[in-house]
Order: sequence, then structure tokens, then C-alpha cells
Amino acid sequence: MERIPILRMGQVLLVTIQVDMHDRLALSLQEDLTEKITRHGSKGVLIDISALDIVDSFIGRMLANIAGMARVLDATTVVVGMQPAVAITLVELGLSLPGVRTALDVERGVVLLQRALSANALLVEDEDADDEE
Amino acid sequence: MERIPILRMGQVLLVTIQVDMHDRLALSLQEDLTEKITRHGSKGVLIDISALDIVDSFIGRMLANIAGMARVLDATTVVVGMQPAVAITLVELGLSLPGVRTALDVERGVVLLQRALSANALLVEDEDADDEE
Repeated sequence: MERIPILRMGQVLLVTIQVDMHDRLALSLQEDLTEKITRHGSKGVLIDISALDIVDSFIGRMLANIAGMARVLDATTVVVGMQPAVAITLVELGLSLPGVRTALDVERGVVLLQRALSANALLVEDEDADDEE
Repeated sequence: MERIPILRMGQVLLVTIQVDMHDRLALSLQEDLTEKITRHGSKGVLIDISALDIVDSFIGRMLANIAGMARVLDATTVVVGMQPAVAITLVELGLSLPGVRTALDVERGVVLLQRALSANALLVEDEDADDEE
């Protein structure tokens, strides 16, 4: 159990973080995620942190890193399931999770991703339309 | 991180097992799952075990128990992501996972559940049609 499993559901990759993150585990998660995004052309990454009672600056930075990597690979990251106490701690730590979108649970996160994806799809269609003119 | 998170996606509950299971964790997972099935009227339970390198008789029994409990609550359980070595060990241990359906990954598991659900839905519709006659 050295790696955190990444579940693929259509265009979305789902990760649930349940274990204490340490350096090597965070690195391998970033590697696995970026590899899967490029291999499958995934458009969204859902990270469930409902099992985490504490999010320290290390995990906060990891989440921001993952969101940044996903963004340059054209995927949107949504962090879901944050406990209220974690939100308080994050702000007290001065971590605002830049570039990370959040939703209360997986279902709402999927809706958020679908909206983001369809908005992108519309943009692409518009561009195609322009080309045809 | 005392509990394994259960993610709800529509009529399906998703659990990824990443940590070493012990008695208390297995019990709390069973309690949480049955509670969520009844609360949300979930029709399917997906258990991802891709992170497990070893499935011993304890985990095998736990999976069979969960499937049994879900069944009496009218939900279908699908275990996904089993590693080839785990399949070998299971059979060598004499554990055939009775009552547990399996699929190679989450996507295939969802398809399996959707088929099972639509088959059930058809049955219910048929019964309704009989009533109307």
C-alpha cells in the first residue's frame, strides 16, 4: 500500500486521501496523477479529503501543486469533502489554496467539473464555428 | 483518520480501501456503509481494492459480509481493481468471495451496476404492469 489509488471515471480522475501524507507518497501521487491525466486525456481531478482531520501546510501545498500541474495539462482540480475544522485551520495557516476549486461533496464536485467541461466545450465549438466562417 | 470515507455518487456508494484493515475499522466500515445505504436508498456499492497487495481471509470475509449486508438492504456490491496476485491468493486460500460481483476497474463496475439496476427497474415496471391488468 505504497501508492494512493487513482480511480478513473470517464474524463474524471478520483483520488481519496485517507492516509498520512509524507514526502515520497505525495511525490508518487503527483507523478501518478500527471501520468494518468496525459495517458487518458482526463479533464478533471477530484480529490476527496473528507478523511482528513488536519490539513497542514505540507498537504495544502501538495493540493495547490496538484492543481497547478493539472491546469497546465488542461485539467481542472476540485477538492471535495473538506471538514469545517480544516477550513478554519487552512485560513489560520494563511493557506487559501490558490487555483484549487472546492465543493462540499463528490456529487457537487462532479457537477462543478461538468459545468467547467461544458463551458470549455462550448468555447471549442465557438472556435470551430469561427474557423468555418 | 479512523474511518474509511464513503463517497456517494447518485445511487452508488464508492469505497476505496487503502489502509490495513483491522477489526474495529472493518466494523465501522460495515456500520457506516449500511447506515448510508438505508439513509440514501443506495442501490450499489463499489469497493475498490486496487491498493491492496494482499487480501487475507479477514478481508475476504469482510468483503463477503459487506456484500451480504448490502444485499439484504437491496443493494448490489461490486469489488473492483483486484490485482492478479490477489486473485491467485484468494483462490489458494479457498476464498471464492460468494455473493460478491467483481469488475476490473471502477468504470466497468459502474457499467455492471447500471445493468443490474436497469434489470431491477425493468422487473419493477413489469410488476407494476401486472398490477394494472
